[in-house]
Amino acid sequence: MTKEALIVFTPSGRRGHFPIGTPVLTAARSLGVDIDSVCGGRGICGRCKVQPGDGEFAKHKITSSPEHLSDVTKVEDRYAEKKGIKAGLRLSCQAQIEGDLVVDVPPESQVHKQVVRKRADVRDIEIDPPIRTYFIEVEEPDMHNPKGDWERIQEALEAQWDIRDVSCDLRTLQGLQVALRKGNWQVTVALSEHDRKIISIWPGLKEKVYGVAVDLGSTTVAAHLCDLSTGEVTVSSGIMNPQIRFGEDLMSRVSYVMMNPGGDKDMTAAVQDSMNELFGSIAEEAGIERSDILSATFVGNPVMHHLFLGIDPTELGGAPFALTLNSGLDLYARDVNLDIATDGRVYILPCIAGHVGADTAGVILSEGPHMLDEISLLCDVGTNAEIVLGNKERLLACSSPTGPAFEGAQISSGQRAAPGAIERLRIDPETLQPRFRVIGSEKWSDEDGFGDDIKSTGVTGICGSGIIEAVAEMFLAGIILTDGTIDGSLAAKSERIIPNGKTFSYLIHDGVEGEPSVTVTQNDVRAIQLAKAALYAGVKLLMEKMEIEQVDRIQLAGAFGSHIDVKYAMVLGLIPDCNLERVKSAGNAAGTGARMALLNKKARAEIEGVIQRVEKIETAVEPKFQEHFINAMGLPNTVESFPNLETVVKLPEKRVAEPAEGGEEGGRRRRRRRG
Amino acid sequence: MTKEALIVFTPSGRRGHFPIGTPVLTAARSLGVDIDSVCGGRGICGRCKVQPGDGEFAKHKITSSPEHLSDVTKVEDRYAEKKGIKAGLRLSCQAQIEGDLVVDVPPESQVHKQVVRKRADVRDIEIDPPIRTYFIEVEEPDMHNPKGDWERIQEALEAQWDIRDVSCDLRTLQGLQVALRKGNWQVTVALSEHDRKIISIWPGLKEKVYGVAVDLGSTTVAAHLCDLSTGEVTVSSGIMNPQIRFGEDLMSRVSYVMMNPGGDKDMTAAVQDSMNELFGSIAEEAGIERSDILSATFVGNPVMHHLFLGIDPTELGGAPFALTLNSGLDLYARDVNLDIATDGRVYILPCIAGHVGADTAGVILSEGPHMLDEISLLCDVGTNAEIVLGNKERLLACSSPTGPAFEGAQISSGQRAAPGAIERLRIDPETLQPRFRVIGSEKWSDEDGFGDDIKSTGVTGICGSGIIEAVAEMFLAGIILTDGTIDGSLAAKSERIIPNGKTFSYLIHDGVEGEPSVTVTQNDVRAIQLAKAALYAGVKLLMEKMEIEQVDRIQLAGAFGSHIDVKYAMVLGLIPDCNLERVKSAGNAAGTGARMALLNKKARAEIEGVIQRVEKIETAVEPKFQEHFINAMGLPNTVESFPNLETVVKLPEKRVAEPAEGGEEGGRRRRRRRG
Repeated sequence: MTKEALIVFTPSGRRGHFPIGTPVLTAARSLGVDIDSVCGGRGICGRCKVQPGDGEFAKHKITSSPEHLSDVTKVEDRYAEKKGIKAGLRLSCQAQIEGDLVVDVPPESQVHKQVVRKRADVRDIEIDPPIRTYFIEVEEPDMHNPKGDWERIQEALEAQWDIRDVSCDLRTLQGLQVALRKGNWQVTVALSEHDRKIISIWPGLKEKVYGVAVDLGSTTVAAHLCDLSTGEVTVSSGIMNPQIRFGEDLMSRVSYVMMNPGGDKDMTAAVQDSMNELFGSIAEEAGIERSDILSATFVGNPVMHHLFLGIDPTELGGAPFALTLNSGLDLYARDVNLDIATDGRVYILPCIAGHVGADTAGVILSEGPHMLDEISLLCDVGTNAEIVLGNKERLLACSSPTGPAFEGAQISSGQRAAPGAIERLRIDPETLQPRFRVIGSEKWSDEDGFGDDIKSTGVTGICGSGIIEAVAEMFLAGIILTDGTIDGSLAAKSERIIPNGKTFSYLIHDGVEGEPSVTVTQNDVRAIQLAKAALYAGVKLLMEKMEIEQVDRIQLAGAFGSHIDVKYAMVLGLIPDCNLERVKSAGNAAGTGARMALLNKKARAEIEGVIQRVEKIETAVEPKFQEHFINAMGLPNTVESFPNLETVVKLPEKRVAEPAEGGEEGGRRRRRRRG
Repeated sequence: MTKEALIVFTPSGRRGHFPIGTPVLTAARSLGVDIDSVCGGRGICGRCKVQPGDGEFAKHKITSSPEHLSDVTKVEDRYAEKKGIKAGLRLSCQAQIEGDLVVDVPPESQVHKQVVRKRADVRDIEIDPPIRTYFIEVEEPDMHNPKGDWERIQEALEAQWDIRDVSCDLRTLQGLQVALRKGNWQVTVALSEHDRKIISIWPGLKEKVYGVAVDLGSTTVAAHLCDLSTGEVTVSSGIMNPQIRFGEDLMSRVSYVMMNPGGDKDMTAAVQDSMNELFGSIAEEAGIERSDILSATFVGNPVMHHLFLGIDPTELGGAPFALTLNSGLDLYARDVNLDIATDGRVYILPCIAGHVGADTAGVILSEGPHMLDEISLLCDVGTNAEIVLGNKERLLACSSPTGPAFEGAQISSGQRAAPGAIERLRIDPETLQPRFRVIGSEKWSDEDGFGDDIKSTGVTGICGSGIIEAVAEMFLAGIILTDGTIDGSLAAKSERIIPNGKTFSYLIHDGVEGEPSVTVTQNDVRAIQLAKAALYAGVKLLMEKMEIEQVDRIQLAGAFGSHIDVKYAMVLGLIPDCNLERVKSAGNAAGTGARMALLNKKARAEIEGVIQRVEKIETAVEPKFQEHFINAMGLPNTVESFPNLETVVKLPEKRVAEPAEGGEEGGRRRRRRRG
């Protein structure tokens, strides 16, 4: 009778008896335990490392010892010499079972590794990429067997990996013979699983392959290079979107195309070229070849989606805002002129509607509202705010035209978030004196050393999160009334309140030595009111459609969401009342969605399925939107209550001033109200 | 009770009862009768024309009348006005059944039309192209339904044609919105059936689409433009292969790559550019757009196959002659830089072995040896001869290095088949006087008016078929002995036998007024002997492997096969004995194979299956090949008998001369014999 031993794998807990001499990897596979391997058990990739347990494992009723494994083999010695191996770890393809064992499969050796995300309220990312690599040994050609090299690769894949029915595109075929001979009939191939194509081939063992997840914003582009086997982000990089020279915001880019037929081609070339540069610099920074990048995923709003793909966005510029397509799209990288691995792939997430793009699809994928019973509100705030509301039963989405005020644009002292910009602000309600923090310093303006910290930049203006806090603090300090008017009567009390034509401004920082002064004008307040009313009206519209009064959880996505203090967002009435502890910044959730689609093939199917059942609400044709918009102009707003907010800040008693005279936005608002 | 009528479709004979008022097309479909339609029954494509029978049809026991159809509709009137319609024909989508009818579906209205081939011994081509067009009406976009235009096209295909699960590549997506709006939401799409992709889209109804079948020879390229719905060849065109400047024959082109690394890229660019030019000129000649060409199929030898695909052919230049792949390859036209329809396709037939290419696969597909019980021998003769032998049970193939003699190259007076070249020759066995025909004239050289006919060219040389006839006639006239020696003793009898160093030549034409003389030298005879021995040795090798003494049918493919008189081929012993009535020129069989793969999707699967079971014989490593080669040097050859040949020509009594002195080939032959 063959001698057997009991082996228990952790953390899975799977167990079984195996004949003495069975390689640990073989035992693991027969129990369905997930151990990684690229080289197929040849002891050269090192992916299958395991840790034999030492001692008594009461839980498993077994006594394990590293000595219950066969001696370290020459193959393992060679691997350790070349690549190093942590003491106590063994290559499971080499180590054979010689007695009872508990064998731990560390996370890095698992096939379906988890990337644990920092935030507790979102799910981890399971590593299950759509493209995998396989090392194979290929039979040499022979005069008496005239099979092609490609056909012998197919045979090797079938014999060594049980992989069948694969095909290969021309570009990869073109390099196949050289790779085989250079690798001495040992090669690594990359298989795109969904369409069963070999998309790249390398001589010998290819140890590391990569993908890039890209959030293609109208203003900035953020890219993350990920190791496709560990999910680890190796390099992150960002650039400005070069299309800015054709128009700051999306609608001006669409107008550019309308005014300059064929202009979309210039914009497509600009963004595609800049992607190539970005990928090149990322590869350089990571010390890898461009050809080591097998795939890339992209998210972006509908206009960026179309322009990146070389599709004229004109239809998105006017009703009915028809998308060319609203499915996810799997392409060859060369289709978008991206130079990565030979037949490298690009996946672009699906758009939801003409105003709700693949970036929102990325936010949904990242934040997972469709997996929860509780009601999530997701807001991705930029020049437009994309809003998603719902739970596993029902999801609604809309886009609301917030304008650029939240990004510090069209604000008198506004600027992008850059060193020198005020980003935090507090106002003493008694003295009305401000204190603030500036990007580039950790200190408040009234702390020692602040001046030294910012010597190189000075105070240059106020960024998006700064203006939110400024207006909110002005409201909390009573400088702004509930209708948004700056209370000119306070000029008597504080020299910070200064007349400015027919209205008043609040002086935050008096420029010294040629520095500009930083003030908040009545028009600035109006701009913020319009922006926040638009956001809130969109949220309110969706809440009404959903027939709910309260949301359980709010995720603020995007750069804006990352920097804003959620308390002030609620003080201004950007978002509805909610337990403040359940209001979170989701960071670059769209980018995280792109990363999930890069690392997990099921995530692609998931988001394509989810967006099919998102109900899209077109704010432009909803009469209630206008009504909500007007009602949301006040601070926090004129019709809602904020019981949760009132537990953390003392809201001023509601005060309404006489109708203000000046201020274009104020005037526009009144015209709308009459209209 | 609903009134019904009996309807019988011819030629299928399918019959059924239908309620009065049923459109004929609907009745046909429900009976599985094959009637074409692109517009889906809208009366605009005219593909569904049928002919109602008039009178009593005893066979079908029915009396039919055109009046048993509803009156001609306005739609039919409009169609007739725009496009014309033959009297008596009706559009079956418009005409409704009002009484018993026999309805004939003419060939041009059948979906699976047959292209009848001229030769009785080969099968017809069934039209069933891998790409088809469909006319659809697409729902307009709507603000409340944010589906993309592509998704609405998918819905239209499903609703109007029951076509599901299609996808679309980026290039076609890029033009989709414009086409839909230009066509006022009516478009024609082209569907590639095997991968379910929409590969082109046109506004409105697209009536005609095309494909091109190409035989990519080392020397010449022949292309045929085919209507994909009728199979009709609209334009045929040919050009010289521009790679000739890199080397006349294949091996010198492979050497060029070996000597000039990267030189394959120049050759690839040369052939791909010339294909684009050829396709452009074909489109122009046919009066169509390049974008009307949806697909192209290619055949070619392994070196041309690799070079056209941009694959370095170096491995084909030496043992073990490894192909990159031996499967058929379905590509995008842009992969080979071919400018046709947006996502137009290219299919290249499979190669069989390193020396037996996709051209031979085309010959097999065209001539169908794998469908017959009898044994076919296929020879495609060029610089190499590809030989296929077998039947439905077993197929063998090899390539034999015949050299360029059969093409008139390396022959002292040799030239390509062009005006001025001698192509036919007879020698009077008594007087040894020749008479001949020259390309450019229908007359023999001893007929009146011959001189006038060829005035512009004169007699410039002798082409491949001419040299075959010359050597064969010299043999039949006793000028050449069975071992190939020109019998110098006849110089006494005829001034046509002239000494030439240590050997003799035969003077065919004495050049006048600066014209060259045309002679057949001893070396010319040796070159032909070597070429024919190589061909015969290959055939013999396959016959031995197959264990047969006799073939049932011989098909000579290629330009050479088209011009040669099969009787002389047998006199020289190029081919084994066979009933001369069963020896045929297969014309450009490789090109016909390409045309079949263009027009019939099953033909692709068929040839890919067949080549899997072809047994490839490598002549270079078969010791018996050399032996057969030597034995085949004589005329007809020294070891075989030709009973069939002897019924049509009187072979000279076997005579062997004293060993000839001069003649390099003769010398080489003797050295080989000794070796």
